[in-house]
Amino acid sequence: MTMTLRVTVWNEGVHEATQPEIAAIYPHGIHGAIAEGLSELLGDEVAVRTATLDDPEHGLGEQALAETDVLLWWGHIAHDRVSDEVVERVRQHVLGGMGLIVLHSGHFSKIFIRMLGTTCSLRWRNPEGGERELVWNVNPTHPIAAGVEQPIVIDAQEMYGEFFDIPTPDDLVFISSFTGGEVFRSGVTFTRGRGKIFYFSPGDQEYPVYFHPQVRRVLANGVRWAAPVTGVRRAPEVSNPQPV
Amino acid sequence: MTMTLRVTVWNEGVHEATQPEIAAIYPHGIHGAIAEGLSELLGDEVAVRTATLDDPEHGLGEQALAETDVLLWWGHIAHDRVSDEVVERVRQHVLGGMGLIVLHSGHFSKIFIRMLGTTCSLRWRNPEGGERELVWNVNPTHPIAAGVEQPIVIDAQEMYGEFFDIPTPDDLVFISSFTGGEVFRSGVTFTRGRGKIFYFSPGDQEYPVYFHPQVRRVLANGVRWAAPVTGVRRAPEVSNPQPV
Amino acid sequence: MTMTLRVTVWNEGVHEATQPEIAAIYPHGIHGAIAEGLSELLGDEVAVRTATLDDPEHGLGEQALAETDVLLWWGHIAHDRVSDEVVERVRQHVLGGMGLIVLHSGHFSKIFIRMLGTTCSLRWRNPEGGERELVWNVNPTHPIAAGVEQPIVIDAQEMYGEFFDIPTPDDLVFISSFTGGEVFRSGVTFTRGRGKIFYFSPGDQEYPVYFHPQVRRVLANGVRWAAPVTGVRRAPEVSNPQPV
Amino acid sequence: MTMTLRVTVWNEGVHEATQPEIAAIYPHGIHGAIAEGLSELLGDEVAVRTATLDDPEHGLGEQALAETDVLLWWGHIAHDRVSDEVVERVRQHVLGGMGLIVLHSGHFSKIFIRMLGTTCSLRWRNPEGGERELVWNVNPTHPIAAGVEQPIVIDAQEMYGEFFDIPTPDDLVFISSFTGGEVFRSGVTFTRGRGKIFYFSPGDQEYPVYFHPQVRRVLANGVRWAAPVTGVRRAPEVSNPQPV
Repeated sequence: MTMTLRVTVWNEGVHEATQPEIAAIYPHGIHGAIAEGLSELLGDEVAVRTATLDDPEHGLGEQALAETDVLLWWGHIAHDRVSDEVVERVRQHVLGGMGLIVLHSGHFSKIFIRMLGTTCSLRWRNPEGGERELVWNVNPTHPIAAGVEQPIVIDAQEMYGEFFDIPTPDDLVFISSFTGGEVFRSGVTFTRGRGKIFYFSPGDQEYPVYFHPQVRRVLANGVRWAAPVTGVRRAPEVSNPQPV
Repeated sequence: MTMTLRVTVWNEGVHEATQPEIAAIYPHGIHGAIAEGLSELLGDEVAVRTATLDDPEHGLGEQALAETDVLLWWGHIAHDRVSDEVVERVRQHVLGGMGLIVLHSGHFSKIFIRMLGTTCSLRWRNPEGGERELVWNVNPTHPIAAGVEQPIVIDAQEMYGEFFDIPTPDDLVFISSFTGGEVFRSGVTFTRGRGKIFYFSPGDQEYPVYFHPQVRRVLANGVRWAAPVTGVRRAPEVSNPQPV
Repeated sequence: MTMTLRVTVWNEGVHEATQPEIAAIYPHGIHGAIAEGLSELLGDEVAVRTATLDDPEHGLGEQALAETDVLLWWGHIAHDRVSDEVVERVRQHVLGGMGLIVLHSGHFSKIFIRMLGTTCSLRWRNPEGGERELVWNVNPTHPIAAGVEQPIVIDAQEMYGEFFDIPTPDDLVFISSFTGGEVFRSGVTFTRGRGKIFYFSPGDQEYPVYFHPQVRRVLANGVRWAAPVTGVRRAPEVSNPQPV
Repeated sequence: MTMTLRVTVWNEGVHEATQPEIAAIYPHGIHGAIAEGLSELLGDEVAVRTATLDDPEHGLGEQALAETDVLLWWGHIAHDRVSDEVVERVRQHVLGGMGLIVLHSGHFSKIFIRMLGTTCSLRWRNPEGGERELVWNVNPTHPIAAGVEQPIVIDAQEMYGEFFDIPTPDDLVFISSFTGGEVFRSGVTFTRGRGKIFYFSPGDQEYPVYFHPQVRRVLANGVRWAAPVTGVRRAPEVSNPQPV
């Protein structure tokens, strides 16, 4: 694809609007920080827009999705406020080829659970000041890991640990460890229909993770990787053809 | 597991009840033929019961599922008559460890689509007299393929062809070819939560496939493979533990 | 990578030199036909050179490999004439990041067996006039399948069938069927160290398969996919670091 | 398989013979401790023998291997003393269906590198007193993890860390973390030909890891899992059959 990739960064946007201490970390919202990182690293390669829960149709109407090549999703305390109609619409676009990047607490979003079929539950802990997360690349040939330091050191993060109830991923790219001893499959990919899905766990609202240069590199790589590989944009359909 | 495996063979049971030509092929129902094959090959290793759509709660009430180690599922023209409540109940039991074997046109069942997240669509054709299906084992170390002939020759079958819109399977066991030239990933496995899922495509209502000795061998192997590996019987849950 | 990809097409080059009927099909050699296809489709994106068995060091000296981003390999009747020293040199470059595309009868090359560890044996048949091969895409999100027709129809080919004794591939992209009923995993990928490997089976010396536009598209996609993802060019090494 | 599984525990046996402090930890050798654990947990299910480097043909002659269903392999400082002839003989038996369980520093054994094709290099560290290793189960439906605690706590171990240069495993069962922050894919499976391979990393000669009840449980599960699934005992071979 030499065309500009159209990226939508979606964020529920509730923490920043209601908790001043989080607004202080993310003054332009989590979506703002993510969008800024993508533009910084990918430049003209992308056209980035943002959308939040309170936008009409959550900013995810039919036209908005039809004009999105890759959708990033951050949500946490308002998963149940996302309408089922929007979730199904997003699902159809993923099946049709739109890339989907699910971030951190988005593991419990309706769309992630709907695409994967599992509970997406995990072990978590968030002590005062967080824990150090080390993100190890276990897949050096993977495009998502290109140019990323080994390991990524994130000084403070919420702990996410195994067992992480997801299907066996297509590609396991990153595994994290935490101060408390847990491990987590923190960078994993899936495909559904014609769509590619990347889940990346670093990025809690209480820590400035989306300003971390290495995290930004991973997300930029993820956008490139998740872009549709063909011009077709519709979910696979049943057919009843003649013999070849 | 040295204990007896408790197996439930579920069939919508509509074709046999409404189409005499199909009742002639399967006089005890598709479920009857499958149950008979399992008992024949697994003997005391299993206790097999059957259930159909018209049973109360489709024969899949909470107690029935709690007492099922492996559930086989055959459906075709009545997928939409299966209640969403039962589908969600089955899903919870699969996540909790119950094995699930989905058969043939069950690819379009609510439970299969719900567990996998994709459309599960495919290419199909059913000419007069069917097509010959050859089922090739591409995974000789897999327990599901143990003792199975290479290839399984099924003289007449409906054609199912690629692209089959499923997630990348954990294990690809069988690939079929058909007279018309199509190929199909006809034996594939997945895991969801603590549960193991096996999809096996041979078995249309218009052909006596479930009497085929090799098909019976595959299903018997599948039941053994899909049995829970631990005594735990609940879906994975979120937890918030102290450091180790 | 916006830099030019340096591609080496290696061919043992024996059939064309000794059998006029094959020289008639491939007047510039199998390597010539492949190189021509890559240049036609990838243009300035690639710089393509060819090498054959009879070149000094088979055309695969240290410098030649150091200046190769992706190596394509065609061999058949002269596998045992490839020196073990060259095979080990190629292996080190693959582990260090050089892409490797192994073609057709290259399944029995020393380098393929050495990278995979298995026998790489298969079922084959080559009746007068060949058999029709249909190449089905089972992985529509894969870059190697981008823009490729479903199925690719190859009118005449040698039959390759399962069981194909390879390790479970990372990605299964194509499955072929043949007139005689066999199936074959005809497009599969692996990684070894920092290197990416793609095996693609269509392409016997007796048939003009490397002039087929769809086959050429697959090989061009394969070259892009197999290109190194990082600038590093050395095999992974043991290390004994301090704690992070 | 209801027949007794024939298990051979192979150990180079050099540390115990030359270093009294290691002989003190493993008075019957590392092989003795492993064999004892298998017999304890599997009882009549197995017949266990041991073999070491100094036995004739390293205790791995043709008859010994022909009478082995599962071979466990521990080596460290004497990898290069293992004869290439024996390595190739073991390889043929694995391809023919013999299970292979490679332990800890066996990652650098000739047989493991030969089966996998990669360097099998990794990051390591062994400070005075070792580091705590936590072994996390990320695959709760896998037979090798049946009945194993979450996590396994090993108070003192040598550290092994990523990047571990192995091919993408078929199944990822365990991931370890260490005091120093590293992670490691510590329980992984592969198949080669008709043979199943399990690599499990805990078990350095300086620590009494093979007396740990949970480690013993994993090895016992591993033996069951790696047992041949069919009665056939020969590597896959090329064939040239008629159409089906």
